[in-house]
Amino acid sequence: MPIITLLTDFGSVDPFAGIMKGVILGIAPHALLVDLTHCVPPQEVVPGALLLRSAVPYFPDGTIHVAVVDPGVGSSRRSLVIETARGLLIGPDNGLLSLAAASLGRGCARAIENRELMRPEVSSTFHGRDVFAPVAAHLACGLSPESVGPAVESIVELDLPLPQRDATEIRGAVIHVDVFGNLITNISADALSAFPANGLCVSLGQVLFTGVSSAYADVPAGAPLAIVGSWGMLEIAIRNGNAARTLGVGVGAPLTVAWAVRV
Amino acid sequence: MPIITLLTDFGSVDPFAGIMKGVILGIAPHALLVDLTHCVPPQEVVPGALLLRSAVPYFPDGTIHVAVVDPGVGSSRRSLVIETARGLLIGPDNGLLSLAAASLGRGCARAIENRELMRPEVSSTFHGRDVFAPVAAHLACGLSPESVGPAVESIVELDLPLPQRDATEIRGAVIHVDVFGNLITNISADALSAFPANGLCVSLGQVLFTGVSSAYADVPAGAPLAIVGSWGMLEIAIRNGNAARTLGVGVGAPLTVAWAVRV
Amino acid sequence: MPIITLLTDFGSVDPFAGIMKGVILGIAPHALLVDLTHCVPPQEVVPGALLLRSAVPYFPDGTIHVAVVDPGVGSSRRSLVIETARGLLIGPDNGLLSLAAASLGRGCARAIENRELMRPEVSSTFHGRDVFAPVAAHLACGLSPESVGPAVESIVELDLPLPQRDATEIRGAVIHVDVFGNLITNISADALSAFPANGLCVSLGQVLFTGVSSAYADVPAGAPLAIVGSWGMLEIAIRNGNAARTLGVGVGAPLTVAWAVRV
Repeated sequence: MPIITLLTDFGSVDPFAGIMKGVILGIAPHALLVDLTHCVPPQEVVPGALLLRSAVPYFPDGTIHVAVVDPGVGSSRRSLVIETARGLLIGPDNGLLSLAAASLGRGCARAIENRELMRPEVSSTFHGRDVFAPVAAHLACGLSPESVGPAVESIVELDLPLPQRDATEIRGAVIHVDVFGNLITNISADALSAFPANGLCVSLGQVLFTGVSSAYADVPAGAPLAIVGSWGMLEIAIRNGNAARTLGVGVGAPLTVAWAVRV
Repeated sequence: MPIITLLTDFGSVDPFAGIMKGVILGIAPHALLVDLTHCVPPQEVVPGALLLRSAVPYFPDGTIHVAVVDPGVGSSRRSLVIETARGLLIGPDNGLLSLAAASLGRGCARAIENRELMRPEVSSTFHGRDVFAPVAAHLACGLSPESVGPAVESIVELDLPLPQRDATEIRGAVIHVDVFGNLITNISADALSAFPANGLCVSLGQVLFTGVSSAYADVPAGAPLAIVGSWGMLEIAIRNGNAARTLGVGVGAPLTVAWAVRV
Repeated sequence: MPIITLLTDFGSVDPFAGIMKGVILGIAPHALLVDLTHCVPPQEVVPGALLLRSAVPYFPDGTIHVAVVDPGVGSSRRSLVIETARGLLIGPDNGLLSLAAASLGRGCARAIENRELMRPEVSSTFHGRDVFAPVAAHLACGLSPESVGPAVESIVELDLPLPQRDATEIRGAVIHVDVFGNLITNISADALSAFPANGLCVSLGQVLFTGVSSAYADVPAGAPLAIVGSWGMLEIAIRNGNAARTLGVGVGAPLTVAWAVRV
C-alpha cells in the first residue's frame, strides 16, 4: 500500500485534514498517511507549491501526494491527477502541483471527472474531502490513473520570478522564510557553481557576504552568513539566530550574487 | 484493528497527545491513530464538541473517537464510553461528546469504572493518559464496551443556542470561525430548505445577502457571500478573503434569514 | 517493527518533519511514526530535553526516539545513538537526549560515524534528514546499535538548576510553562514526600499556598493551587485558568516549599 501525503492550508484548529484521513481510510484502510504541513498561509498557492516541491523528492517511489490550497474551489477550475516518474500528485489545477511535478519528472496530467470515484455528494466548498481524498484512496488501492478522467494538454503553471544572470552576477530574490528565519532564495546551488567559489560575494540590502559558507559553524554565533541550505538553494541565515527578524527582510527581497574578479 | 482518533486542547508544544499515543500503542500496537485536532481552545468544551461533531461522520464504522477537553479532571465528573450506530466515543462527561453522539446515533453510555483498564497509577490531572487512552486501546483490541463500567441514565448535554424560527424568518448565530475566517452558523441546510430558495435574504449586522450562493465563485473576489459550507450549515464567507476579520464578527454574533415575499 | 517518535523544533509550517518521515519510510516502510512535538522553541535545547524526558517513559520497550534541536548542525558536534533499558535515543550530542537517557536508564552511547547508514549526500544544515532519520530507520529494521559507530565515554549533559534543600525547605524554580499556563517546577513529588504532607507551604512571589492540593477541583474555579502534575513534579496552576498569565510568572521564577512546624 503506498504512502499518501497531505499538504493543505487547513491550519491546526479545524479538523479538515483529519476528515480527509477518515474518508481515505474508509476506502483504503491500509494507506500510510503522512502530514507534510497544514499551515500553508490560507489560500496562498505559491508558498504551498514551494513547500510541496521542497518535500516530495524525499519520499519513496509510488508515493501519492495530495495538496489542497484551493481558493477556486467550486469554480470551473479543474481537479488533477499528475503522473510523475516518482509517484502521483493530486490537487486543484491552480499551479499548486506544478513545481513538484517538474521536480519529480512530470508525465501525463489528467482531469478528475469520474464521478464514481468521488463522494456521493460533492460540495462546492471542500473538494479535499469530496474529491481529492477519495480519488487518492482509490489510486492507493491500485486504480489506474487513466480511470480518473481524460488527459489534459497543459496545466496551470506558476509565474515565479526567475533569477537573472549575466557573466558576472546573478540577481535573485527571497522566496521563503523558514521557521528559523532563514531566507531561502531562488538561486540554486547549480547556478552558483557556474562561478568560481573563490571570490563569490552575496549582497542583500546593506549586508555584504564575502563567500558562501559551508556550515553555520563557519561563523560566530549571531553572525550572518550565506549558505546552500536544505532546499539546495542559496540561503541567508544568522547562526543561532533569526535572519528575517534581525535583517528585517522577507519574501520578495532582492539579492545579488557577484563574482568579484579581484578579491 | 479499528481507527482511534484524538481531539484535545493539548496544543502543539507539549507532547501530551504523543504520550497518549505511546500508552495506546503499548496496549494496541496495531491501532491506527488519527489526529483530529489538538488546538481546541484550552478548557473550552463547546468548541471542542462542535469540532468533534464536524469530523466524526466521515470516519468508517467502528472508529473509536477519544476527546479530551477536561477542565473538571480530578473532580467527580464521570468518564464515559458512548456506543453509537457508527462507533465509540470516549471522554469526560462534560458535554464534549454529546453533539457527536447525537450525530452518530447515540446508544448506551457507560461510566468508566473498571480500574483494571486504567494505568496502574491514575493521576488527578491527566486522564487522557491514565484513563481514556488505555480504555480506548483495550476497546480497539476487542474488549466489549460493557466491560468498562455500568450504563448511565443520562449524560451531560450542552446548552447550545438553537435557531429561532417562525413562518417568515430564522434567527440564528455564529457558532464557529474557521481557519479561513468563515463564519459558521447554527442554521442548517435543512432549516433553509423549508423556505423557497428564491427570495432568501440573510442579514448579519450591516450586511445583507440577497440569496444563498452555491459556490464561492458565484461572487467576485473580495465580496461577501452566504453559502452552505462543509459543516452542512449556513456560512458567511468572503471569497478569497477572511469574513471574520473584514466584517469584525465572531462567535455569538446574531444573524437572520428571512424570506422576502416580494423580491 | 518498533515505533519511531520524532521531537523537533521544525515548527508547523515547513515540512521538515514530513521529509524525515519520507526518508524513514523509504528504508523502513513498516515503521510506526509518532510525533511528540515539532514546536520546541527554535534552537532551544533545554526545553527540548525537558519535553522529550516528559514523554519517553510512556512508550513501549524498544521504541526509537529521534530528537532534533540542533543549533550546532554542521559543526564538529557528534551525532549519537544512546541505548537505554527501554529503547534507543537518536540525536545531536548537545544535551538534548541526556535527560531522557537518564530517565530511561542510560546504557552505551555511540557516535554515529558509519557513512553507509546516512543519505548519500550529507548536508551541513539538515542532519535530521540526512543522518538521524536514516539511522533510525536502519535500527528499526533490526540493525545492531554497535554498527552505527564507536562507543563514546561521555555525552554532553545539561547544566540544569537543581532544587536546593535543607531540613525545613526546598528552593526550586519554574522549568516549563505548559499550554494551560501551568508552571512546572524542578521539585519532584519524591522531594516533597520527604516532608510531612500536613503543613507544607509553597511560596511563589507574593502567592502563598498552604498545602499541596490533590486535584484542581480542591479549589474554586479561578483560584491558584499547588499540585503534583502529570510530569510528577510540583506545579502551580489556576483552576480553569492560566497561572503563567495571571501570576505573571515564567520559566526561571524561583519558588520555595517550606514545612511550617506550626500550622
